[in-house]
Amino acid sequence: MKRRVLIIGAVALGPKVACRLRRLDPVAEIILLDQNEYISYGGCGIPYFISGEVSDIKQLMSTSFHVVRSPQFFRDVKEVEVRTRTRAIDINRRKKEVIVIDLSRGVEESLPYDVLVIATGSKPKKLSVPGADLPGVMTLSNLHDAIAIRDRVSKGEVGSAVIIGAGPIGCEMAEALADLWGIETTVIELMPQILPGLLEPAMANIVKKHMEDHGVTVYTSETVTSIEQENGSYRVVTDKRTLKADLIITAVGVEPNGELARKAGLLVTPRGGIVVNKRLQTSDPSIYAGGDCIEIPHLVTGKLVHFPQGSLANRQGRVIGTNIAGGYAVFEGTVGSFAVKVFELGIASVGISLERAKCEGFDPVCAYVVQPDRAHFYPSQQLMYMALIVDRKTRRILGAQGIGKNGDAVVGRINVVASLIASKATIEVLSNMEMAYTPPFASALDIVNAAANVAENILEGLNVTIDPEEFCSIFLGDAVKPEDLCVLDVRSPANARPYVEKFGPRWVNIPQEELIHKLDNIPKSDELILVCNSGARSYEVLRQLQSKLSRKTRNLQGGVALLKTGGMLTLEESDE
Amino acid sequence: MKRRVLIIGAVALGPKVACRLRRLDPVAEIILLDQNEYISYGGCGIPYFISGEVSDIKQLMSTSFHVVRSPQFFRDVKEVEVRTRTRAIDINRRKKEVIVIDLSRGVEESLPYDVLVIATGSKPKKLSVPGADLPGVMTLSNLHDAIAIRDRVSKGEVGSAVIIGAGPIGCEMAEALADLWGIETTVIELMPQILPGLLEPAMANIVKKHMEDHGVTVYTSETVTSIEQENGSYRVVTDKRTLKADLIITAVGVEPNGELARKAGLLVTPRGGIVVNKRLQTSDPSIYAGGDCIEIPHLVTGKLVHFPQGSLANRQGRVIGTNIAGGYAVFEGTVGSFAVKVFELGIASVGISLERAKCEGFDPVCAYVVQPDRAHFYPSQQLMYMALIVDRKTRRILGAQGIGKNGDAVVGRINVVASLIASKATIEVLSNMEMAYTPPFASALDIVNAAANVAENILEGLNVTIDPEEFCSIFLGDAVKPEDLCVLDVRSPANARPYVEKFGPRWVNIPQEELIHKLDNIPKSDELILVCNSGARSYEVLRQLQSKLSRKTRNLQGGVALLKTGGMLTLEESDE
Repeated sequence: MKRRVLIIGAVALGPKVACRLRRLDPVAEIILLDQNEYISYGGCGIPYFISGEVSDIKQLMSTSFHVVRSPQFFRDVKEVEVRTRTRAIDINRRKKEVIVIDLSRGVEESLPYDVLVIATGSKPKKLSVPGADLPGVMTLSNLHDAIAIRDRVSKGEVGSAVIIGAGPIGCEMAEALADLWGIETTVIELMPQILPGLLEPAMANIVKKHMEDHGVTVYTSETVTSIEQENGSYRVVTDKRTLKADLIITAVGVEPNGELARKAGLLVTPRGGIVVNKRLQTSDPSIYAGGDCIEIPHLVTGKLVHFPQGSLANRQGRVIGTNIAGGYAVFEGTVGSFAVKVFELGIASVGISLERAKCEGFDPVCAYVVQPDRAHFYPSQQLMYMALIVDRKTRRILGAQGIGKNGDAVVGRINVVASLIASKATIEVLSNMEMAYTPPFASALDIVNAAANVAENILEGLNVTIDPEEFCSIFLGDAVKPEDLCVLDVRSPANARPYVEKFGPRWVNIPQEELIHKLDNIPKSDELILVCNSGARSYEVLRQLQSKLSRKTRNLQGGVALLKTGGMLTLEESDE
Repeated sequence: MKRRVLIIGAVALGPKVACRLRRLDPVAEIILLDQNEYISYGGCGIPYFISGEVSDIKQLMSTSFHVVRSPQFFRDVKEVEVRTRTRAIDINRRKKEVIVIDLSRGVEESLPYDVLVIATGSKPKKLSVPGADLPGVMTLSNLHDAIAIRDRVSKGEVGSAVIIGAGPIGCEMAEALADLWGIETTVIELMPQILPGLLEPAMANIVKKHMEDHGVTVYTSETVTSIEQENGSYRVVTDKRTLKADLIITAVGVEPNGELARKAGLLVTPRGGIVVNKRLQTSDPSIYAGGDCIEIPHLVTGKLVHFPQGSLANRQGRVIGTNIAGGYAVFEGTVGSFAVKVFELGIASVGISLERAKCEGFDPVCAYVVQPDRAHFYPSQQLMYMALIVDRKTRRILGAQGIGKNGDAVVGRINVVASLIASKATIEVLSNMEMAYTPPFASALDIVNAAANVAENILEGLNVTIDPEEFCSIFLGDAVKPEDLCVLDVRSPANARPYVEKFGPRWVNIPQEELIHKLDNIPKSDELILVCNSGARSYEVLRQLQSKLSRKTRNLQGGVALLKTGGMLTLEESDE
């Protein structure tokens, strides 16, 4: 008798399981259920549909050869049966049946299965403040929401918008609304930085300033206390101000939708994520689960995390398909590879942040590098910013983050680090990592090699550094006296002049090429902070001075470039 | 007493050793020698200087902060002494002395050393045909050549050029001359394909066609027999034709410049590469060597290879600097990471080709994938072409190649595979490799994952494939009869029509979505080749038909896209 494989949920993981299984098993009966009408769409494309870059919603539901992945398509091309507007409301594991309700007709039915796959995805977290459930407050949980928002926006009904939450979706939505539609957009984030957990604060500052440069207002460390409606217009009230808005989008994260599994007595984490083994079986071996409804091991920390990514759902779908067909495939976990585009910036990260690494009991350091993404003489080169987090004791790479205008180049670098993190590599491996080299696409010493070199130099005690945040907090305060702390800026006078003018005797400029002849001009302060544009020349000077001076001397990581691009210290420099 | 470290050669490796060593050792005396006047320049930038993209030769000799790396710069900033126009002519290892000649004054001198570094680089291979040494026949061995060529070109003296050799430099030079200067450019290659050894023939075809589309004439399988001069103009004579040219550039490869080392009795390979251990010491422990003058282990084959890359020279320079300073650093070898830009195409490869893998005793297969570089619904997406070579027995990844208009995206993918090849990973690791995902920069299932999946499917016998070359050789011949061999094209009628018209009953079109209802229309030929645009849909059909048909059925790898883009089969298709 033919086996029946029932799959609950027909976006991302579900269709992938169905298709992979069909290619391996020509006879099994495969049924895909979904409570919505739209299935098998690219949910990650929603911000680009709202921005208008993706003109028609059908594009998100089509194959690369422009055929809509409709139930008909699944039937004819994949030999998979699809039932939309069919909600699974219960699983009877003893009888191996799923109780479903046909939402169009309101009829209940029992569907027997031999193998069941739960692909119920995630659901948006609710903002728990008064007014969060008003009809004008939208989330972005599915295509219906997306169509509703785009509809209002394109009719010109939205002059101002407030986005609550500055995670990836909040930032993408800010671009979508502000860039093409010219909507006055404000983003409010509870945490002190945007993209929390994904970027070091100094890196997040770069993105924040970029958004502000594109006309988005960004408030961090700000709590929404209520949402109010008056005469058809809305107000977002925070602990600091009240903002009027025609459109309010909450994007405060998602959580796994494990309710059906929990009700069926399957093992579920306290956060609601379904627990699976490496073959992606739940605690009932006839039931698999994958995609946004499960939690998976983080390969750096070893802990279970919820990391909802369409890319992981695809890989997991293939694993489940293989396993149901009688093959053997495993999914080991995640290293947290992540990318987002915000206006012109490409942003990517992997692994864990410095702060998280400390919480996990590592002894981490963070190396910052600012370097062109191509050979520095190649015309289209742009600066790329990279942070590399490594463990002092084991020298393991724990995380990496990159930002640059050439997003493909940024993502390419982070993917390389991702592959090394997955294999638990040390920084020596990254130092020697053989990046393909040609001037239009890379420097002879690629930025990932440079970052590993900086990290090695820090661990060896050769590079004694101060991070941009600490620099700002100790130097920019008014109380600092020149005898306590001075900056030695080794850039050219044209670059240094505005800083010297602003900070007076606390910011001294001696260009690197004159330094060995002007050792006596070096400030006599108790502590010296060396500064150049990126932190590379100032490191050389640090090494030079090591044998010549005995006072406490540190090198500013990321140099003036990181401070400026992050809006932490902005003065106009003249180009020589 | 201060140690004296003498470094012969002041481009790439030499300066890197000097700078790294200085940062670790503030007291050693460091002397850099070079027989040329120009030092520490980015030699890989020469094609971009000739094209005019890099406007001033000084840019190739400058730091990223626009300071020329002159002897003065090295003295003041790096505390390293540089002697230009100083040729090392002999090494007296017993006395630890290098005999040098000052080329300006013609004076010989002995320079004692404690540690010696040989960084004599490579030299262009000579074309051994009559006339190869005529004055108008140029190589690209240093900045002097580059300046001479650009000088002639910019004066309008060059109407036509012949480039002998279609390796990376030949291809880059073709672009440099044809694109900006509009010179009628011909490239002649001895081998049956361009970029031999770096790309599979089907992949190389894409680059060749792209060059031809940009007006460059490319002749492969063609041997230059002589170069003749008559009344100031030149003729290149091949086994097939005679070509007039105002400028002739030979780019037939380089070989290690190990002569000085050989004369000093150091171990040198038959090809002239200096032999070093992992710490980059020669057979004399006081003498280190690195960069283009050494041979290094290939980490896939285990054999010594000459792989001259500025990027490797930089990494090796750091290793040598660390070791001289008393540290411990090693250089394990190369995986052959490579990139080149040719007109709008970015091309990258790593590891070994299918052909090389066969020679090395592997049992290799090659998987081809054609896929968008971004989410297929994202507006700026472009097709990327990838080949992945894996060993059937060990499932190890042996090589990968990528081509696309988004060069950063191509290089990023190949770098990821490079990191896996270095760790001897199997395709399963690449299948599950967690590439950062966001629609503007990747598909949910990235092309590298897809390539690994295809390779797995081939090894498992699920995907029975025919490569584009074999397809062309067996199908495009006139002798094939419809009863022997037919193509089943599962694309839309609009795409398939011109092929059906051209090949008649040998090319049958049944769109994938109609196939299960039209099984009887499938040609009854002894062998069936399934075709779609990329090889993905036709693979699905292969799996579908597996249980329904019993005759020999194969899937065309890379589909019509690879055939068309490589100019192997070009017919006009209408867009639906």
